Amino acid sequence: MSLLVVGSVAFDSVRTPHGSAREVLGGSAVYCAVAASYFTRVRMVAVVGEDFGEAPMALLRGRQIDVSGIEVCRGETFRWSGEYSEDLNDRTTLSTSLNVFESFKPRFRKADVGVPYLFLGNIDPDLQGQVLQRVRPSLAACDTMNFWIEGKTDSLKRLLARVDGLVINDSEARLLAGEINTVVAARRLLALGPRFVVIKRGEYGAALFAGGHYFAVPAYPVERPVDPTGAGDSFAGGFMGHLARRGESSGGALREAMIYGSVLASYCVEDFSLDRLAGLTSEAIERRSRELRDFLSVDEPAESR
Amino acid sequence: MSLLVVGSVAFDSVRTPHGSAREVLGGSAVYCAVAASYFTRVRMVAVVGEDFGEAPMALLRGRQIDVSGIEVCRGETFRWSGEYSEDLNDRTTLSTSLNVFESFKPRFRKADVGVPYLFLGNIDPDLQGQVLQRVRPSLAACDTMNFWIEGKTDSLKRLLARVDGLVINDSEARLLAGEINTVVAARRLLALGPRFVVIKRGEYGAALFAGGHYFAVPAYPVERPVDPTGAGDSFAGGFMGHLARRGESSGGALREAMIYGSVLASYCVEDFSLDRLAGLTSEAIERRSRELRDFLSVDEPAESR
Repeated sequence: MSLLVVGSVAFDSVRTPHGSAREVLGGSAVYCAVAASYFTRVRMVAVVGEDFGEAPMALLRGRQIDVSGIEVCRGETFRWSGEYSEDLNDRTTLSTSLNVFESFKPRFRKADVGVPYLFLGNIDPDLQGQVLQRVRPSLAACDTMNFWIEGKTDSLKRLLARVDGLVINDSEARLLAGEINTVVAARRLLALGPRFVVIKRGEYGAALFAGGHYFAVPAYPVERPVDPTGAGDSFAGGFMGHLARRGESSGGALREAMIYGSVLASYCVEDFSLDRLAGLTSEAIERRSRELRDFLSVDEPAESR
Repeated sequence: MSLLVVGSVAFDSVRTPHGSAREVLGGSAVYCAVAASYFTRVRMVAVVGEDFGEAPMALLRGRQIDVSGIEVCRGETFRWSGEYSEDLNDRTTLSTSLNVFESFKPRFRKADVGVPYLFLGNIDPDLQGQVLQRVRPSLAACDTMNFWIEGKTDSLKRLLARVDGLVINDSEARLLAGEINTVVAARRLLALGPRFVVIKRGEYGAALFAGGHYFAVPAYPVERPVDPTGAGDSFAGGFMGHLARRGESSGGALREAMIYGSVLASYCVEDFSLDRLAGLTSEAIERRSRELRDFLSVDEPAESR
């Protein structure tokens, strides 16, 4: 079943201990859509400036992503720049120029209405709510960030009452729940409405809280992480992409989706921008997902005995 | 098979956001021995001062721990005091008085020689080496800390060439390996000699690196962690205790041992000192270990469907 991804498209400038990249393709919707494209048909709704150019569009099309919902507006594309600490766990934003993204109003074509799976990337929760109302998918999940948690708490809580899932960072989950303990925070977030909450923990993996159950997936152990930008969005893309492929979201499907989220995030961090993420094969994804399952298996996998 | 634990015995004074405790029983050997006592016969080799008193000795004996190797020396018992951050992830040492522990020389009785399982808690690596030489166990694992990594690097590396396993904190693993990436750090530590390396990650659980394989266990999701003091040592105790009970250390046994380590650590943090850890039942431990296995199971456990 197809997946609609709404969110940001950006040009990122990034400095990490392993090098730097200037004005490279990024943004939550891009990472999420590309990651999801290995599992299902993906449509994007986003905005870019006149400077966006053909090359990034071609990259997205090369992943069979329907980019007809990417509106080209007068002005420049969203720019972000930042740098990472030695261990890649902390990042400092150096500059943010929202540009055309500042007045982003998602526009829909007829074909977007009724798309069965929807991921609402980190944008104004009022806009997320409007998209949800318009698309009316079978399953919707959203992300958010500090800025909206602090500035639009009520809108965000209204949204959470209407989505199926929340996929959020550790620190943002704590902020939104007003609770420092992750387990209690997750319970409070579930009480706001969503059926499942995924808490992303960077190099420590991610945890799924859904009804009575809990599932933890480690990050795939990457030896040379180069740039963590987009890892969380790639996680969301792998996660949602697998759910859309399965066409259901039982506890078992959610757990499998966590594995795929972790795998796509692990590929994302292996290079700058989409340099690794956009050039994968299904075989590579399945291989790493089998490895990750083995890492979770209490019974020693046969081949390592 | 029985387990010999060598390490510190202390009186701790702790302040956490959930309360405080003054001069309560602690120390690496105590937490480790009590945690292991649910799995196997445990002997301790340690030193205390004349002020130690009968009550803590009775607590250890109540867990069927052989305390005849705890030497009572003239002077005071090791004291440590510290406080924890709001999220319990950072701790500040307020004071350390080594007292009789400063000149600790492990003394052995005949029955200690040849004890099949040995855990060398965090003491001077030269002493750890002497104990190992004297006891000649079938399987030995050790812990260490910054102080020895920086002050006695060579002794520590000689020790690592002779033990079977290293059970160590995340930050200390990085320091010892001189490498910020955990995966690469673990590989370097394995190259120093041990057959397995367990890296403890606090609230994120722990990771096992052994030969070609990797296994990650999450922390059991505790809703009301009260005091993390001793959690890492309790992990080591559950881990070593299970290996001693199984009497072998295949990949499968190591993975199960990781589960038990995580379970014992989770009970440890639920109260100050040994208040929760010393009063468990095998049933409670098995129940939580089954839950933790379910949290790792990609196939949704039957009872939560």
